Amino acid sequence: MTDYHARTAHILARIEQLAAISDDADGVTRTFGTAGFVRGRDLVQGWFAAAGLETRLDGIGNLRGRWPSARPGAKTFVLASHIDTVVNAGKYDGPLGVLMALDLVETIIQQRIELPFHIELIAFSDEEGVRFHTTYLGSKVVTGAFDPALLQKTDAEGITLARAIAAMGGDAAQIPADALPAAEWLGYFELHVEQGPVLWASGVPVALVAAVAGQQRVELTWQGMAGHAGTVPMAQRQDALAAAAEFVLAAEAFAGAHGRGLVATVGQLRIPHAASNVIPGQVIHSLDLRSPDAGPLAAAYGALHARAEAIAARRRVALSWQLVQATAPVACDAGLNELLARAIAASGHAVVRLVSGAGHDVVPASAMAPATMLFIRCYEGISHNPLENVEAPDVAAALEVAEQFLRRLASRHTP
Amino acid sequence: MTDYHARTAHILARIEQLAAISDDADGVTRTFGTAGFVRGRDLVQGWFAAAGLETRLDGIGNLRGRWPSARPGAKTFVLASHIDTVVNAGKYDGPLGVLMALDLVETIIQQRIELPFHIELIAFSDEEGVRFHTTYLGSKVVTGAFDPALLQKTDAEGITLARAIAAMGGDAAQIPADALPAAEWLGYFELHVEQGPVLWASGVPVALVAAVAGQQRVELTWQGMAGHAGTVPMAQRQDALAAAAEFVLAAEAFAGAHGRGLVATVGQLRIPHAASNVIPGQVIHSLDLRSPDAGPLAAAYGALHARAEAIAARRRVALSWQLVQATAPVACDAGLNELLARAIAASGHAVVRLVSGAGHDVVPASAMAPATMLFIRCYEGISHNPLENVEAPDVAAALEVAEQFLRRLASRHTP
Repeated sequence: MTDYHARTAHILARIEQLAAISDDADGVTRTFGTAGFVRGRDLVQGWFAAAGLETRLDGIGNLRGRWPSARPGAKTFVLASHIDTVVNAGKYDGPLGVLMALDLVETIIQQRIELPFHIELIAFSDEEGVRFHTTYLGSKVVTGAFDPALLQKTDAEGITLARAIAAMGGDAAQIPADALPAAEWLGYFELHVEQGPVLWASGVPVALVAAVAGQQRVELTWQGMAGHAGTVPMAQRQDALAAAAEFVLAAEAFAGAHGRGLVATVGQLRIPHAASNVIPGQVIHSLDLRSPDAGPLAAAYGALHARAEAIAARRRVALSWQLVQATAPVACDAGLNELLARAIAASGHAVVRLVSGAGHDVVPASAMAPATMLFIRCYEGISHNPLENVEAPDVAAALEVAEQFLRRLASRHTP
Repeated sequence: MTDYHARTAHILARIEQLAAISDDADGVTRTFGTAGFVRGRDLVQGWFAAAGLETRLDGIGNLRGRWPSARPGAKTFVLASHIDTVVNAGKYDGPLGVLMALDLVETIIQQRIELPFHIELIAFSDEEGVRFHTTYLGSKVVTGAFDPALLQKTDAEGITLARAIAAMGGDAAQIPADALPAAEWLGYFELHVEQGPVLWASGVPVALVAAVAGQQRVELTWQGMAGHAGTVPMAQRQDALAAAAEFVLAAEAFAGAHGRGLVATVGQLRIPHAASNVIPGQVIHSLDLRSPDAGPLAAAYGALHARAEAIAARRRVALSWQLVQATAPVACDAGLNELLARAIAASGHAVVRLVSGAGHDVVPASAMAPATMLFIRCYEGISHNPLENVEAPDVAAALEVAEQFLRRLASRHTP
């Protein structure tokens, strides 16, 4: 029997070593291409090499380790997650998936297990998109979806992505050659902390990811009439904040009543020229709308737009509704999820199927190959926060499930 | 017959001359003690002197002109308004009252009318309180309510009020002697633009001010739980903005249903660490509550506080409720308002009695003597805005009413 608890302790010790490397004095911050990022990646690269993997850095700075199969015509199964972080991050978002996958591959190597496919273990250099405001830079390169126009994007200091790549020792010219050709893909699998509270509330350590939600991001501007807070009677007001408040509650109630994974969030709101004694004349706020299903997402978008127009008309306030961003929902692969469900059940856990409201590298990967993810319960669902935490028994459980999954995958592909 | 229209044209020409003086290149900005303020006051001082008034500047820079009565034992009736402005102000808020009162006194002088009281015409140096965040500095000096501790208050650049007074050629040491002694006060009267939309909607050019509303200013902080906009199900959220939005609408509905001059405004609202994909964990906003009646104001304050507590409890969000400022309602003098009502009716207008939601120098004046105000209709109720405007016929009507009022006042005090 494999001792998942000892392996978990080893993984969590590595997590601590990696988390000690940061651009901040206190906290964990290793955004794409910074000195802290490079030092963190150096540490992980050493572990890849020590495990016996053929290890290299690709053009955009992804760390890539290969364990080839001896079988003629073998395809490549990708195990991956990311090692960049948000600012003031937790320790587990990304690195846990990379280091668990490394442990799985180390075990395969140590136990001299013959696989009917190559394994490529990848630590993506950018998933969070914090520095250049565009996500999945790393996995876009691996899946051939990287648009060279991105190289001209600039960070907050005006540095282009092209210069940032050169500064970290990468090579933008090499990027097209770094894509895994479509014919070589067998599939994609990622382990990741849930970053939400569903598993914490459910009492189950892991969940398979059925889909990644689609997202509509809207900017609403309500234009009313500023006025003196003391002199304009209530009935004569055109209060932009009251209109916005009505919409905030309408969006909350709509998503709450809809269920089925639809969520609506107003995260940013500002009142230009605000003063405590001035009736707000203008309010600008965001709307973030997500659903696992394209139809209901579009329907919710239309319904909330109509609701906003009705509020504006009734309150004699002008409304500007601007769609800022739209991404379609992505379903994870049913075949891989069937294997994953069996692995979860065989490990003694209830099979929880989650829709990821957060985006992940499985989105670009799904365009190339069957792809899925396993979520690991995190403390109170807290993520993107130094309080992010996981329980060791949950990591051990996820390790067992992932190992069972890989065994079943190998069996399926063995003639 | 006096030609009120010709006098109005003269007043409005002076308004334009004064409005051409500003600290801004475009717009009207003459906050307390600036170079623009001093130049504007110099212009008005010349008009005071040319009218034949005994003219001086007091310690805090109020412009004071006296027209003494020959009658032994005569008391002083104060005609006043302010000549400081907000930033990017209208032309009429303050100066219209000063220049109309000057016209009334000029007419008295030219017509050699004998009055049974001295007239003191005052252009207050600070009513708006923009620079030192404390209102009525000018009238507090005249009414003896000036607290010397105010001299240590600083503006945005760290300059104390004491230094600002010295820089504009004032003399803080003289301030105590600048108060009109209580025994000398006969009364106080001010002409002012309404700064609200009631007269504009009513079709009447003037209104007497029955009272100045009391005000409670509160800062509310809602502390929920920040979370990922994609991963936290609607039912598990503790959204601080949704809680605040519910309160915004509750305050609006409460004041709207209450009527009788109660107004409630949320003018400022901010979300620390806001991001479009983060559920707001904290929201801080203002509440400005005003009513002409102390009892209903206190009742509304208590009811809205209870409403906020109920919202917080139901939404599992923590609430901090901080009273920032409280001023009691001030009733204008019933005796002066009876004279004013007769003057309005005699001039052929409906008698509209308004509660001023905005504060005015009549508030400190009321503590010393019978005091009241006459409001003049302004365009669409817009004020504190370059669009602030008045119609010439309304100024002429107000001039006639004020003259009728002063005649009646003189008759009342003539044995």
